[in-house]
Amino acid sequence: MNSAFLSQSVFYHCRQQVGSRHRTCKRANVGRKFFRKYGGFIGGGMLSAAVAGGVFASPPPASVLAAILALRDAGASGVLLIVKNYTGDRLNFGLAVEQARNRGVAVDMVIVADDCAFSQPSKAGRRGLCGTVFVHKLAGALAAEGRPLEEIVCQVKEALKNIGTLGVSLSPCSVPGCLPSFDLPPGEMELGLGIHGEPGIKRLKVATADEVVNNMIDHMTNPASQSHLALKSGDSVVLCVNNLGALSRLEMAVVTRAAISCLEGRGVQVARVMSGSFMTSLEMAGVSLSLMKANQEVLRLFDAKTSAPAWPNQSGVRVSGRSYTLDPPAVGTDVSSQSEGPLSGVMANTLEMVCSSLLQRQEELNSLDRASGDGDCGNTHAQAAKAILEWLHSHVVPGCPGQLMSTLAGLVQERMGGSSGALYSLFLTAAAVPLKDHCHPAAWATAMHAGTEAIRRYGGADPGDRTMLDALCPAVEELKRLATVPPGGHMAVLQAAVERSELGAESTRDLIARAGRASYIATERVTLPDPGAVAIATILRAVFQALGGTEAK
Amino acid sequence: MNSAFLSQSVFYHCRQQVGSRHRTCKRANVGRKFFRKYGGFIGGGMLSAAVAGGVFASPPPASVLAAILALRDAGASGVLLIVKNYTGDRLNFGLAVEQARNRGVAVDMVIVADDCAFSQPSKAGRRGLCGTVFVHKLAGALAAEGRPLEEIVCQVKEALKNIGTLGVSLSPCSVPGCLPSFDLPPGEMELGLGIHGEPGIKRLKVATADEVVNNMIDHMTNPASQSHLALKSGDSVVLCVNNLGALSRLEMAVVTRAAISCLEGRGVQVARVMSGSFMTSLEMAGVSLSLMKANQEVLRLFDAKTSAPAWPNQSGVRVSGRSYTLDPPAVGTDVSSQSEGPLSGVMANTLEMVCSSLLQRQEELNSLDRASGDGDCGNTHAQAAKAILEWLHSHVVPGCPGQLMSTLAGLVQERMGGSSGALYSLFLTAAAVPLKDHCHPAAWATAMHAGTEAIRRYGGADPGDRTMLDALCPAVEELKRLATVPPGGHMAVLQAAVERSELGAESTRDLIARAGRASYIATERVTLPDPGAVAIATILRAVFQALGGTEAK
Repeated sequence: MNSAFLSQSVFYHCRQQVGSRHRTCKRANVGRKFFRKYGGFIGGGMLSAAVAGGVFASPPPASVLAAILALRDAGASGVLLIVKNYTGDRLNFGLAVEQARNRGVAVDMVIVADDCAFSQPSKAGRRGLCGTVFVHKLAGALAAEGRPLEEIVCQVKEALKNIGTLGVSLSPCSVPGCLPSFDLPPGEMELGLGIHGEPGIKRLKVATADEVVNNMIDHMTNPASQSHLALKSGDSVVLCVNNLGALSRLEMAVVTRAAISCLEGRGVQVARVMSGSFMTSLEMAGVSLSLMKANQEVLRLFDAKTSAPAWPNQSGVRVSGRSYTLDPPAVGTDVSSQSEGPLSGVMANTLEMVCSSLLQRQEELNSLDRASGDGDCGNTHAQAAKAILEWLHSHVVPGCPGQLMSTLAGLVQERMGGSSGALYSLFLTAAAVPLKDHCHPAAWATAMHAGTEAIRRYGGADPGDRTMLDALCPAVEELKRLATVPPGGHMAVLQAAVERSELGAESTRDLIARAGRASYIATERVTLPDPGAVAIATILRAVFQALGGTEAK
Repeated sequence: MNSAFLSQSVFYHCRQQVGSRHRTCKRANVGRKFFRKYGGFIGGGMLSAAVAGGVFASPPPASVLAAILALRDAGASGVLLIVKNYTGDRLNFGLAVEQARNRGVAVDMVIVADDCAFSQPSKAGRRGLCGTVFVHKLAGALAAEGRPLEEIVCQVKEALKNIGTLGVSLSPCSVPGCLPSFDLPPGEMELGLGIHGEPGIKRLKVATADEVVNNMIDHMTNPASQSHLALKSGDSVVLCVNNLGALSRLEMAVVTRAAISCLEGRGVQVARVMSGSFMTSLEMAGVSLSLMKANQEVLRLFDAKTSAPAWPNQSGVRVSGRSYTLDPPAVGTDVSSQSEGPLSGVMANTLEMVCSSLLQRQEELNSLDRASGDGDCGNTHAQAAKAILEWLHSHVVPGCPGQLMSTLAGLVQERMGGSSGALYSLFLTAAAVPLKDHCHPAAWATAMHAGTEAIRRYGGADPGDRTMLDALCPAVEELKRLATVPPGGHMAVLQAAVERSELGAESTRDLIARAGRASYIATERVTLPDPGAVAIATILRAVFQALGGTEAK
């Protein structure tokens, strides 16, 4: 190792009670006394050490000096301190620099001041914000290459001119055990804030992510501001979207996308993007944008490998110009050539009878469902029935029952919705296979069995669990006989199946729900039959009637 | 690529207004209509695709099928779907599996059910939670090695038996535009919740991180529970501490440390730790713990390289057994021989008076600081005061004021923290020099001047910049007269210095901050005196009183 790189508190060492968030007053006792220093950017190709103070406080100079001397003892030929521009840090790290030099260590310090908030920065100058992470990366990569300390300092100082950061937040933060750092009324955001709970430079009304990001980048690049980043069309940048603490992943994704679009809209090439929690401000619900103008050399250093755990698994591929959409693969609903056949008429009649039965019983099914679920069982079945009727009026019913089943599976999947849609679609998809090349009674028996098994496999329910299977399984058991009965006996088998289905549906009155929505309801409340099972019995009865069946009794 | 691995919605695709957080009603308009799919675990060595539904909803089977066919078209020899155990997901992904098989694609599905919440899970089984991320990693690593689909399915199913997860939260979450998913009164936590806003299995009183983690691991490993993870002393585990959304980095670090300690306390070897946001539940302020029992083969797969951006830069080093402390390098302090003298008593009294005054005004100083800084000015002064009192009770006060100054400089540097600690330390270090060999009034005047100049030199502020210097400089100016006034007039000089100091502190109300933290605040918001200046006046007043001074008026 040629040079060692020492940063100020990237993550803070703490000895506090963690962590009352006064906003909710919930966290007062979650924490405990602890002592932890977490240097997420320590690793090959980034930092050699991080010196942490108390929350939001600079570490004592003795800690900094101890770290410098530890690196010297470990063989560092030089030590660079990367310090954000805050008075306390300048003082404490400056003291340590002087003390280390008195002891003969080659040590230097760069001050990061990337804040773009103030048009006319005060005497204290611009603050150091998340752009510091870029500096860690570049300096670390140079050190890993064995460059001498002076050269690294020189390159880093050059890079600093091309880095700018601005933050915005929807909330303050609170140091564990303390009051929130500022008040922010609902509907307002704080623009240009620091990372230690300092309020921002102005309040804005909450707006869309696009508007906020546009406003931020305007502010950051405004040539009238003394702390602006000179950015023009054609420039290439690395973008860091930094979660200040409590933004959700969803919100971060929205902001990141908005920032990329906004930059691209100004003709700026976004070379790399990093989006995540890199320099946080406790539980602040805010975000900062950091931009670093990047040439090939900067990108090379940015892309260099590091083992630092807080550095993301970055892609070394230019963001701007990448395509985000792909044509979908040809799914090919094999609706190819569907030609009528001898069975087309009877199947069309049967479907119409099934659909009209379901529509007739819509309210009854809803009412049964209200007792045990969300009350829409009749509606979802009616949606399927209407979709099928609509399809029947504008399409030829294919002569091949397998083809019809596949078509119905697609219709139901697309139009019925909910778990029922998926379950019926599974049934029809699996039932289609045995009926692709055959339509004799034994094939129908196999198809019904295959469909039922698919429902059991993916739905995870069994007969007796108070579901549609309580009506379906006994019927399918009966239908197996289709394979063996003599011609002419088929209608009797079907009738028996319908009756067993109706008995099965009725029997669900006494069953405890163990699957589906009804399983979340207390048992004593459910005294009516399961609507899914009743719907199955209704469908089978309609099929029987459409095929000319009449009651035997 | 031998096999392709397809997960259900790791990150969700959304078409919602983002994102009203009903907790604060702040975010209602931050978002915008957007369409984004973020598959953080897609990359070499992990997933080939991720299929996302609406927020918290399963994607339609057609989307899943499209993804499977896209992978087939890209040359996948087989596709494995990794699905969390929710009925809707099982059905929709199952349907796509059936349809893909009908098209001749080699496809299989594993269901992750790692939830340890329910002692007696319902028929629906255990839910899929963050342990899914382990499955992504293992399956992806196996696929990258070119293993056949059947072998991967077999190994993954074996690994699933050794994975368990439990979540806890301090808040619900809310789907953008909707009400929070459940109510949670202040002071309570929800244990055993899902990742879609489902409430947990029980409420607990908020407790320390150690207690909560201990409670969670007890629950997860309780052999009386049907969904427990059999964990015994001597086992080796991978630990994933997963931020459910809005926990701060600080809180995550506390929980992570607590979880490692708790496991090690049970004789469990923590082989690897990942801590971060891997499977979030929008803005939920909670955390889940996932454990995976790990043998050498599991660790090999866990450590295998991946380019997935959401996978952390993991260290392949065992966590348990690593040493976290290092002896500090010899810095060398000159606390040599300190002997009492005639001034020891009066200096001890004076220091006690200064310290008790600072402690009395702790809250007042904090409150002044909240208006302009980070609100901890009283706390840092109180820390110094406590450190000095502690030192006074166990040490002899040296008779030489210079020695005392040096000792105090070290104490303050070490214990006070922040900018104040450095500034006071600089003051005391510089002031010690003239008092090393003398203690007459003129030496004190010189010392006060030297200390003040050191503050100006390193701190970069001047009188009029709204800092401690506004109270210190006028007093020091007055104290210069100590060199010339006749004996007996010293107390009058000191009194005048105290009064000028208090006037100086008061005058900071009208000053514009040009240095220090307050300089970052809009001028019109700061109408209170500078807390640093008030602290100086407090100290000088206490010195005056300790030396027997009373008000002249």
